[in-house]
Amino acid sequence: MKHNFGAGPCILPQEVFKQASQAVLNFNDTGLSILEISHRSKEFIAVSEDAIKIVKELMNVPEGYSVLFLQGGASLQFAMVAMNLLQEGKKAAYLETGVWAKKAIKEAKLFGEVEIVASSKDANFNFIPKGYSIPEDAAYFHITSNNTIYGTELFDIPKTNVPVICDMSSDIFSRDINVADFDLIYAGAQKNIGPAGATLVIVKDEILGKVNRTIPSMLDYKVHIEGESMYNTPPVFSIYVSLLNLKWLKSKGGIAAIEKENIAKADALYQEIDRNPFFKGTAAVEDRSRMNVCFVMENPELEKDFLKLAEEKGCIGIKGHRSVGGFRASIYNALPITSVHVLIEAMQEFAEKHK
Amino acid sequence: MKHNFGAGPCILPQEVFKQASQAVLNFNDTGLSILEISHRSKEFIAVSEDAIKIVKELMNVPEGYSVLFLQGGASLQFAMVAMNLLQEGKKAAYLETGVWAKKAIKEAKLFGEVEIVASSKDANFNFIPKGYSIPEDAAYFHITSNNTIYGTELFDIPKTNVPVICDMSSDIFSRDINVADFDLIYAGAQKNIGPAGATLVIVKDEILGKVNRTIPSMLDYKVHIEGESMYNTPPVFSIYVSLLNLKWLKSKGGIAAIEKENIAKADALYQEIDRNPFFKGTAAVEDRSRMNVCFVMENPELEKDFLKLAEEKGCIGIKGHRSVGGFRASIYNALPITSVHVLIEAMQEFAEKHK
Repeated sequence: MKHNFGAGPCILPQEVFKQASQAVLNFNDTGLSILEISHRSKEFIAVSEDAIKIVKELMNVPEGYSVLFLQGGASLQFAMVAMNLLQEGKKAAYLETGVWAKKAIKEAKLFGEVEIVASSKDANFNFIPKGYSIPEDAAYFHITSNNTIYGTELFDIPKTNVPVICDMSSDIFSRDINVADFDLIYAGAQKNIGPAGATLVIVKDEILGKVNRTIPSMLDYKVHIEGESMYNTPPVFSIYVSLLNLKWLKSKGGIAAIEKENIAKADALYQEIDRNPFFKGTAAVEDRSRMNVCFVMENPELEKDFLKLAEEKGCIGIKGHRSVGGFRASIYNALPITSVHVLIEAMQEFAEKHK
Repeated sequence: MKHNFGAGPCILPQEVFKQASQAVLNFNDTGLSILEISHRSKEFIAVSEDAIKIVKELMNVPEGYSVLFLQGGASLQFAMVAMNLLQEGKKAAYLETGVWAKKAIKEAKLFGEVEIVASSKDANFNFIPKGYSIPEDAAYFHITSNNTIYGTELFDIPKTNVPVICDMSSDIFSRDINVADFDLIYAGAQKNIGPAGATLVIVKDEILGKVNRTIPSMLDYKVHIEGESMYNTPPVFSIYVSLLNLKWLKSKGGIAAIEKENIAKADALYQEIDRNPFFKGTAAVEDRSRMNVCFVMENPELEKDFLKLAEEKGCIGIKGHRSVGGFRASIYNALPITSVHVLIEAMQEFAEKHK
């Protein structure tokens, strides 16, 4: 049995894999594969509409927001956000909390002035900056709600009159958020939404249409809204599996229920990290991510041995990102708490062996 | 039994569906789904490299060209081509052969001057213009090799000193072409490559880097080439299924073998259209597509009845695009000739019944 702690693309529920596998052979008893149906067929239009509907339902998306399934991942959103929202002569404000925020900043600079309101760069991004002020004349303020590499998560969404844009790629659908606190949310699918290849965007319609630059059709949110998320051929299979996964989430009790489980999983693992003298966490305690638990060993020379033991127990994908080192256990929605217990047991067994 | 004549996303080989379905449960005996493996895992890096390798092999891609699997479909390429290649102060030349060419032209105009060297617009795009001249000072010349809606195909690739860019979305891998005749080829996957969600680009490296405008990273071919087609999380499953499908093509004898089959399928169907007094083709005979066979009925009032008969025999997806009407039978690589025979039989049965 494998316990997939990979940072993404990542584990999805086993029943989603079964349903998706079946649909590749015979989708909804059509006698056709989900891979060969037209995106303009009534069957797929229903999938697309249901996927949008269930996003709205699970996240309580208020009126006045559009939900889109696009392509290109968060990386394309970095450019699209600035292209669509950074008005000429204005500046954009960014919170620099990691390498993904840095990439978002880099793309925004192609379209105008960027002010970095705060950064935890000097501490290798091991905390979320607080107490900064957001310029009132900014076109928007951009945050990254969860930083996979460093295991930090932004729990207090800043209140401001400036539109708030959030890269929620790695913690969307993991905890209750108030969509009305945001003006645009985007997320690559490949953590808690579905397989790689789709990108979810939730955007408040009224913030659009305020820039004068020419925007290619495929990069224009308004074009995709008018096309009802089907301006061109969408990533059919990724959207279908996202629908399956979000239905699974709904059947589990929705975001409120999964948030409890996620807290239980994270608490159990952080408790072991804090208790076990061989390990220590790398992120500031108050900013610890519930999705990506980053830790190192007091004696780094033992890390290879622990990795080996964990892998023998079926724990995969726990090697930390090279910029932090040590370990990163990603514990997304679909990872069962039993897998977390296996990892904790490995940590305890290791400590016992080496004491 | 269904005979899928859909225009795309379209039929793929049944054995590809079986292999893909299995990989969603257990990919290459890893004990993991193809949907949950990291795109940086050695397993997926091998998939990506193999997919690029088999494209180069099947199409005999010469040295000096890069092969990329991107996202966003041909629609995003419309903008990327102009953004990356339309030098400031130069103009781009386009051949207008249908609605997709028109969309490509629209996006190019955002980045500079466009000259339409010839158009078959006045004839509802039912032929491929010939005998036009390409301005020698153009930044590039853009063609669409196959026009799904109108059932036309461009067989004589123009010889010119100007870089030739080709949207090959609907006939790539269906016939032998000489890659050296082109400087950039792009194609949405969802016809003869694989499922929707991936976009193939084959680009001659030396044409890049000649524009001065700022290009967002995700839209810059050079960035994707440097990232070895993995600058960001790629559409893992679409690329994997594309690899399976191209392996199937190779096992069938490659492009030379499939081209023979495609000619046999198209010839059989066009012969029936020309022979059967109830039907007539809509495209100019010399430009008839081997991928999309468009035809109408001499008496349009009978079209509903024929559609019903064909559907009773399992032929689906044959309704013509609204701008042409009648029927469109898409007979991509994976559609067996036996399916074409079923459609021909339906046409003969219909004629017999109504004579």
